[in-house]
Amino acid sequence: MSTDLPDVSGISLGILGGTGDQGKGLARRFAIAGHTVLIGSRSEERAREAAESLAGLAGTVRGADNATVAAEADVVIVAVPWDGHRATLESVRAELDGKIVIDCVNPLGFDKQGAYALPVEEGSAAQQAAAVLTGSRVVGAFHHVSAVLLLDPEVEEVDLDVLVLGDDREATDTVQALAGRIAGVRGVYGGRLRNAGQVEALTANLISINRRYKAHAGFRVTDV
Amino acid sequence: MSTDLPDVSGISLGILGGTGDQGKGLARRFAIAGHTVLIGSRSEERAREAAESLAGLAGTVRGADNATVAAEADVVIVAVPWDGHRATLESVRAELDGKIVIDCVNPLGFDKQGAYALPVEEGSAAQQAAAVLTGSRVVGAFHHVSAVLLLDPEVEEVDLDVLVLGDDREATDTVQALAGRIAGVRGVYGGRLRNAGQVEALTANLISINRRYKAHAGFRVTDV
Repeated sequence: MSTDLPDVSGISLGILGGTGDQGKGLARRFAIAGHTVLIGSRSEERAREAAESLAGLAGTVRGADNATVAAEADVVIVAVPWDGHRATLESVRAELDGKIVIDCVNPLGFDKQGAYALPVEEGSAAQQAAAVLTGSRVVGAFHHVSAVLLLDPEVEEVDLDVLVLGDDREATDTVQALAGRIAGVRGVYGGRLRNAGQVEALTANLISINRRYKAHAGFRVTDV
Repeated sequence: MSTDLPDVSGISLGILGGTGDQGKGLARRFAIAGHTVLIGSRSEERAREAAESLAGLAGTVRGADNATVAAEADVVIVAVPWDGHRATLESVRAELDGKIVIDCVNPLGFDKQGAYALPVEEGSAAQQAAAVLTGSRVVGAFHHVSAVLLLDPEVEEVDLDVLVLGDDREATDTVQALAGRIAGVRGVYGGRLRNAGQVEALTANLISINRRYKAHAGFRVTDV
């Protein structure tokens, strides 16, 4: 695999919906790697509480409302619940203009038989983000990371390849490099944005696998 | 991972569309593992030619028309092109009654930008098979195996987990065990049939990955 990825060590990361488990888990790992992380929430107070719970890591973690985070961070991760996805993005459209935006949202439904993929008009959450954020460089990534593993202080390395999807090579290279900042993780280019839907939906399969094998499963790409 | 899978060493395998690269590659690997393999095709002559090209392996390989193969084999793999999928299954519906049927078809389109997932009315090829073959036990599996690797005599082990999808535990266990008959391969339960669509569609991502990294990529499931 080519390793000609950019140096992203100085990039600050904003996380919309950073008070949820996945967003907070990513915040924790990027702070461990030395990044400045801005945790965003609709509630500034909850964002600050989440940031305080991550104090003492290598990188600074601060909390603010979503709009402030979207405006101040170099790269912004969207980790909000699916049902608030479109509205949250519309509310910070101007702040995200020109930026790399990483969508990690999985549109899933749940019933007695477990998880299943929800239909998305635009094809995927990432494509919905691209449709709303026409001035941003939208990349899909971090769909399959286990929040449990990201938050577990006893897990030093996360055994996972992050599939990175997008149509802008410089943006996907940057996100691959960012994925590689999490110990154990490798960012692998996974195709164009139009092929993001199945990667998001595959999270339902991971949930089935976790239930069957009592695991925190992830995927590795072989021969790459 | 649980290893309580059934002994499938005596099972004969039929492969509808067995003259194509993927079908022939699977035939080759199952014959190496000692299975009797029946290669099916619309043309009995082409099926026999394909079978002859696989002579001299541990298991016997024979060729016949699809209906004969569907009637005679213990377990039947569907490896036909997507555009002939429904019609082929309808034509052998009676012969497949009561049997485990493994669908490995990926409904994909191709253009200048590569591969992309085609919409399927039933949700997936596997669900379409289940809708047509109401008397069969349909399982989705073998979507991501590289025909090139399966057919390459220099590749002794295929570095891949086969995700096995289905609603019938005995059937998915059997197919997991069958996947494990291919050297290097492990069969991993991947969820119910309603979550097969994204596994099929993910083949488009593998094609993108192969193009970017000049690889024959596959997936491994971690922590299982």
